[in-house]
Amino acid sequence: MQINIENKATASAAYDTKKKRLVETIDRLYVRDARASLQKMLSKIHPADLVAVLDDLPPAHVVDIFYAIADTESAADVFGQLPANLRRQVMSEAKVEQLARVLEHLPPDDLADLVGDLPEDQREQLMGLLGHESKDEVESLLQYASDSAGGIMTTDIFSLAHTLTVEEGIASIRSREDVEMVFYLYLTDEAGQLSGVVSLRQLLLADPATPLHKIMNRRVMKVTTDTDQTTVAMLVDKYRLLAIPVVDDENLLVGMVTVDDVIDVIEEETTRDMLKMAGTDESETLTQSAFKIAKIRLPWLLAAFVGGLAATAVIGQYEEILAQVLVLGAFLPVVMGMAGNVGVQSATVAVRGLATGAIDVRDTGPLVLKELRVGLLLGGFYGVILALYGYLMHDSLALGEVVGLTILVNMTGAALLAVLLPMIFERLKVDPAVATGPFVTTAIDIFGVLNYFVIASWIYEL
Amino acid sequence: MQINIENKATASAAYDTKKKRLVETIDRLYVRDARASLQKMLSKIHPADLVAVLDDLPPAHVVDIFYAIADTESAADVFGQLPANLRRQVMSEAKVEQLARVLEHLPPDDLADLVGDLPEDQREQLMGLLGHESKDEVESLLQYASDSAGGIMTTDIFSLAHTLTVEEGIASIRSREDVEMVFYLYLTDEAGQLSGVVSLRQLLLADPATPLHKIMNRRVMKVTTDTDQTTVAMLVDKYRLLAIPVVDDENLLVGMVTVDDVIDVIEEETTRDMLKMAGTDESETLTQSAFKIAKIRLPWLLAAFVGGLAATAVIGQYEEILAQVLVLGAFLPVVMGMAGNVGVQSATVAVRGLATGAIDVRDTGPLVLKELRVGLLLGGFYGVILALYGYLMHDSLALGEVVGLTILVNMTGAALLAVLLPMIFERLKVDPAVATGPFVTTAIDIFGVLNYFVIASWIYEL
Repeated sequence: MQINIENKATASAAYDTKKKRLVETIDRLYVRDARASLQKMLSKIHPADLVAVLDDLPPAHVVDIFYAIADTESAADVFGQLPANLRRQVMSEAKVEQLARVLEHLPPDDLADLVGDLPEDQREQLMGLLGHESKDEVESLLQYASDSAGGIMTTDIFSLAHTLTVEEGIASIRSREDVEMVFYLYLTDEAGQLSGVVSLRQLLLADPATPLHKIMNRRVMKVTTDTDQTTVAMLVDKYRLLAIPVVDDENLLVGMVTVDDVIDVIEEETTRDMLKMAGTDESETLTQSAFKIAKIRLPWLLAAFVGGLAATAVIGQYEEILAQVLVLGAFLPVVMGMAGNVGVQSATVAVRGLATGAIDVRDTGPLVLKELRVGLLLGGFYGVILALYGYLMHDSLALGEVVGLTILVNMTGAALLAVLLPMIFERLKVDPAVATGPFVTTAIDIFGVLNYFVIASWIYEL
Repeated sequence: MQINIENKATASAAYDTKKKRLVETIDRLYVRDARASLQKMLSKIHPADLVAVLDDLPPAHVVDIFYAIADTESAADVFGQLPANLRRQVMSEAKVEQLARVLEHLPPDDLADLVGDLPEDQREQLMGLLGHESKDEVESLLQYASDSAGGIMTTDIFSLAHTLTVEEGIASIRSREDVEMVFYLYLTDEAGQLSGVVSLRQLLLADPATPLHKIMNRRVMKVTTDTDQTTVAMLVDKYRLLAIPVVDDENLLVGMVTVDDVIDVIEEETTRDMLKMAGTDESETLTQSAFKIAKIRLPWLLAAFVGGLAATAVIGQYEEILAQVLVLGAFLPVVMGMAGNVGVQSATVAVRGLATGAIDVRDTGPLVLKELRVGLLLGGFYGVILALYGYLMHDSLALGEVVGLTILVNMTGAALLAVLLPMIFERLKVDPAVATGPFVTTAIDIFGVLNYFVIASWIYEL
């Protein structure tokens, strides 16, 4: 995951040029077979940048250059972040032992994610490469749902008995250089249950002889392995934590979720919301075949299709009016389109507001009232313009009245409907993003067309 | 900002019950005038939870209960997170001195944000309450654009000369309990320029007599005050940092941006993208009047309006066909709606993919090809169904051919157009989210209607 900076011209241009030069230099060293220089060059590049570089290299050179990364820890880091297609390439062309050595350096959670994402055959192949310990860890992590705290946590943590002193604690940390324990020191009681937490800073500030349980914070914010990842993200964000410990049913410490994983969760959830609102879902990725993508989108479109047929049936009922006032047909696109567009505006404000917590279900009343007024204002504005347009272009007062009034009613109704549906779904504990996909649009279409012909038959007295 | 967990029934229900009980207890203590118990109760609640509690209390009690928070640091924290309406209430009913005492505890960046968000008169009032030092800091922060590193950084950092030893460094940290320096220790050279960084952990691991410059990492990832906040977020996320230092034009350390601020930036940017795609923008908030909201949405709708009129004009050109084959009018909604819906799907996948970095402009070719195939598959599927429906319901082979063929062409064209436009805008360094608002929908509408009548006049030979 990477935030796009392409539209920030200057920052992006500088970054692109730098990367391009890097890619060229590396490829040149590879082609010249200057292995020592290549390795030295690679060792100086941050793993996150190496991923981008590999992605830009000629496909035929990628695998060799990947294995030229001398530091296996960096290589593991890079491998963990590679796009799926490159990862597959590296795995398929792998010198098996070399890959196994790299993988041993991945944190267990990343390794489990990686294994979990693979197709069945590659998964077996990869598991076969792992040592017993890694294999067991990966297998135990794979039992958790991928969107639970257990599924996103790292097991690579280290805790101490709270009976130790500050000095002993510091000595312990010193002796365990390998563990990626950056922020907090989690403490456990005699039974091994999570009992408290101290920050590294508190450790620095405290008197060396103090027992850890005297300075620890006992009210540790924690989650269990089955806590939903959205809740984990909410807690880390709300309490501005750098990490949150994960315990099992017996309050035994089994892992932690760090803030960088939380950023990934937030991005993932947002992507899901956006795709659902658009009428597709997060299983749609670039690497999938057109056939699979069509299969994912097809059912979402069914709502729109059935709705469209319903609108068609409505118009069919009013065919006589249409026959007598043909121009009504011509105004269909603008009359329907304006309602649809204002509906998307209202629905998006509601769905996003609910997702970020800016609004909640208790705001339904004022929100609906406000959208009513917004709809009336916008509908009034465009209604007057369209009425004038209809009147002047077709020299018919009745037509002006019909299209003007329809826009007013349609836009107001659409704004109301589009804000009400997400709020109702939220109250029913149904994801409002789903509610706001093709469903809202379709409801607005049917409502809008019906409304149009009812008003027309009333004003034309047909 | 808070992630919504309402739709996760269990977690949410438990949380709601707990909060409700808390709100009731606090309000009861206040009504009974049990000040000591109230203060004790408040002191036990996390500031982030206090914000939620205050939001739920009877409006008439909020201000008094806010000022019953005895710890001014907590009160400042709460005040910084209060929703705008509550904050206004606390400020307007304030016992001036008490508020000033609270505000002095806010980190300078939060204070500056707060001041920057206020209307002119309240801003003056608040600035008047601050001490000289705070006032100067706030004024210097306010000069930075709110979406730049300078605008989101905290100046509350502390750095050391890199010539000190590890032991001296630790002593220094011990002596400065007030500074919120949690993660990294930034180091400067003789000229005061940022020269390196060490983590607290490195400090713990190193030999006490070592000079800091021997263990520091000299390749510090840093940004300047005018770096765009999106770039800051991208760097923190990509390199998985907990904080990033901010320097001025002379490489002097002036602040840092922490990972919790980055989470806010990511949420903010996503909200902006989503609202832009929907045809409104982030200045639309709950507290604004319906009139202001209408004013924000109005211009976005203009594109749709002009597009709708264009589609209307197209149909006007084909009025003779419509007169002879009236049922063509009835099929307009489904023919247009299906194209619009598939367009929204494709556009969202493209815009979100560009924003998260899952795709970039170089993927334009394969992406367009894939959407072409997806559009053909979906259009083919729904085309066949609609053709059968048209043929069977209206006993007209020609009608079936027209509507079936139109859906096929419209859906394919819409999928192509909707993926092409964001990619083109991205290449032109224009925000693709804007491009995908009403513009894509409108383009698809015009294209779809034109196409429908061209196909109809061809098949009916009119």
